[in-house]
Parts: sequence; C-alpha cells; structure tokens
Amino acid sequence: MTEETTHSPEADLARHAEKMAKKKAARDKIMATKTGEKGLIIVHTGKGKGKSSAAFGMIFRHIAHGKKCAVVQFIKGAMSTGERDLILRHFSDLCEFHTMGEGFTWETQDKARDIAMAQVAWEKAKELIRDPANSMVLLDEINIAIRYDYIDLGEVLEFLATEKPDMTHVVLTGRNAKDELIELADLVTEMELVKHPFRSGIKAQIGVEY
Amino acid sequence: MTEETTHSPEADLARHAEKMAKKKAARDKIMATKTGEKGLIIVHTGKGKGKSSAAFGMIFRHIAHGKKCAVVQFIKGAMSTGERDLILRHFSDLCEFHTMGEGFTWETQDKARDIAMAQVAWEKAKELIRDPANSMVLLDEINIAIRYDYIDLGEVLEFLATEKPDMTHVVLTGRNAKDELIELADLVTEMELVKHPFRSGIKAQIGVEY
Repeated sequence: MTEETTHSPEADLARHAEKMAKKKAARDKIMATKTGEKGLIIVHTGKGKGKSSAAFGMIFRHIAHGKKCAVVQFIKGAMSTGERDLILRHFSDLCEFHTMGEGFTWETQDKARDIAMAQVAWEKAKELIRDPANSMVLLDEINIAIRYDYIDLGEVLEFLATEKPDMTHVVLTGRNAKDELIELADLVTEMELVKHPFRSGIKAQIGVEY
Repeated sequence: MTEETTHSPEADLARHAEKMAKKKAARDKIMATKTGEKGLIIVHTGKGKGKSSAAFGMIFRHIAHGKKCAVVQFIKGAMSTGERDLILRHFSDLCEFHTMGEGFTWETQDKARDIAMAQVAWEKAKELIRDPANSMVLLDEINIAIRYDYIDLGEVLEFLATEKPDMTHVVLTGRNAKDELIELADLVTEMELVKHPFRSGIKAQIGVEY
C-alpha cells in the first residue's frame, strides 16, 4: 500500500504556503511601484448606503492620526447624525464642522432660500479647502446641491483643479455625481443598492441610518 | 406689451414650491408605512473602497447614541487602522474590539494558523452576538475568511438565522460575499470601484486608506 504523499495534509499546506509566497512577492512588487503621495479628489456616489459613512470613516482616520480636517454638510436631513454629535463633543479641536443646508428641498419648499444656503456652504467650503492646515475636507451631499444647480458645476471643477492645495484631500458625496466630476476625481466609489429593508416595511433605525 | 407672468421668477418659485410640496406629501405617505424595527443583517461587499469605513461609521453612530457595540476584525492588514486606535483610546467602555487575524493570508503563508485564528475569531463573534447587551456587532472582513473556507458558510448562516437576538444588528464586510449570505441579509450594499489612484502610481495614504 503506497501512501499518496502529494495529497497528504502536510503537502497541501506546503503547496498553499508556496502559492501564497508567490502572491506576496507579486503584491510586494506592485506596491513598491506605488510611491507617490498627493491630495486626492474622492467621490462617493450611487444609490446605495454608506456614501457619507465611509467618508466620515476617513474623517475619523484623520482625527485618529491627529490631522486637521473639516466637514461641510450641504444638505441636512430631518434626522440628526450621530457622527456629527460625536465630532462636536469629542474632536472639535481637530475637525471643524459646518451644517449649512436646512433639510432636503422637498422639506423646505423654498428654492430661493435653498440656493442661498448652498452658496453660503460653498463659500465656507472654499475657505476650508484653501487653508493648507486642513488635511481633508469633506463636502457632504454636495452632489445633490450641484444636481439641483444650487451650485455651479463648472465653478466647483475649476476651483478643485486650480485652487486645491496639492496635499489636501477633498471628499464629495451624494447621489448622481456629475460625469465631469468623476472625470476629474482620483478615487471614485459607487455604492450600489443590492437590497434594502425599507422594501419590507422596516423604518430608519437609530445607529444604522442616523 | 403683455408680460408673460407665468414665466416670471416668482411664478417659477411658486411652481417649484408646489412641486416640492407634492414630493414631500408622497414621501411622508411612504415613510408612514415604515414602522417596523428589527436587528438587521447588513452586508458590505464589492471591490470598491468604503466597505469597512461605512461599517465603522455605523459603529460610531452607535457610540454617539451611547449604545453598546463590538467589533471583530477577522483579517488584520499590515497597516494599523485609525478607527481601531480611536475606539480603543476613547470609547472602549461602549465598544469592545477584537483583532483576531494576523495579516492577510499571503503575508503569513501558514494556512493551518490562519484557520485556527479564524475559528477563534468566529467563536468570539458568536459570544458577542449572543450577548443582548450589544446593539451592533461588526464582523470586519469575515467574507474573506468564509471565502477561503476558514469558516464554514453553512455554520455562519445557521447561527445568524437561529441565534442572533431579534434586535441585534450584525454587519459583515469584505469582498466576494457569498450569494447565500446576500440572500439571508436585510441590507446589502455593493461598493463598486469606479476609479482608483493606485492605477496612477499613488500609494496608500495616511487618513485615507488607514
């Protein structure tokens, strides 16, 4: 009776180790070519959840590393956001927070005021981005303000292309990001909705949606 | 000379207000039907960025609301994560944190140890989910451990379906989520990669990737 040693658990593990060593070598080689650093234009768009949360995740990473950052919320929903409270309560020394919008437009029904609010938010955004002390500036839900023409797309693109300091990251979130913005951006993620509990009658819940 | 009053700015604004009032009424009607509450099974998958960050965003929302939660990291990358440091430093009373994996498998090249680590992580995960004091438990990168068969998919599905307390949210992240898990889940988001700066030679940067 000959034992087929090539199928023994030990041989399997050895083969696995060899395969993974090759993977690691290939990965290390690729990573070694990635040496550049620059401030990124980052876009989170799509109909799925997580666009703002993932952006706040990067803000929390900045805070964890003791780096200055800032948030401008262009559209404030009816619900208060947990992230905002947490930042205001614990980390206001590192992260400036401005909530400029006063609710979704179908809540306010006052277009003239919505436009004025969006313009104020955009002026604040430019000021924060121009300040090189800020390592990251999050423009939360700005895509909605651009989509409704409350802010001029051309002006946003030109400002980012010409006035953003080289090392500053700017994150722009919201559905329906314009193609021209995606074109300009360095890092774009589309959050795609696969399944949502609203469809089965579940309401927005504390700690999940807000 | 007759002025076409229907095209005056005032008439435009009035029409806008009327349209938005209708939108709000329709939205309010839909939202009124969403009254249920339950602990959700939430999956973040896809090749794009933000899967873990968006999950940590929900953890921070829980912390902001003073609700207990827990994180088990199944795969720990070479880089330390900012979120982890922030939670350990400031919120360890509200959020238990366990990092069980010791690096991606192509870093360790030791399958037997990887399997043992994943099993320890899964046992800890079950213990945390069973504890009804936890409002949310995040199983970060568990999809990778399932994909490599370090953890049995069937066991995970059965546990979630039968032992998860009704009001506990469980979040499972990582690429290549199994179809059966997506089937079981209440809320699934696929983070799709549209554009990534690695392609232009930019390395992982502090405050963005870690």
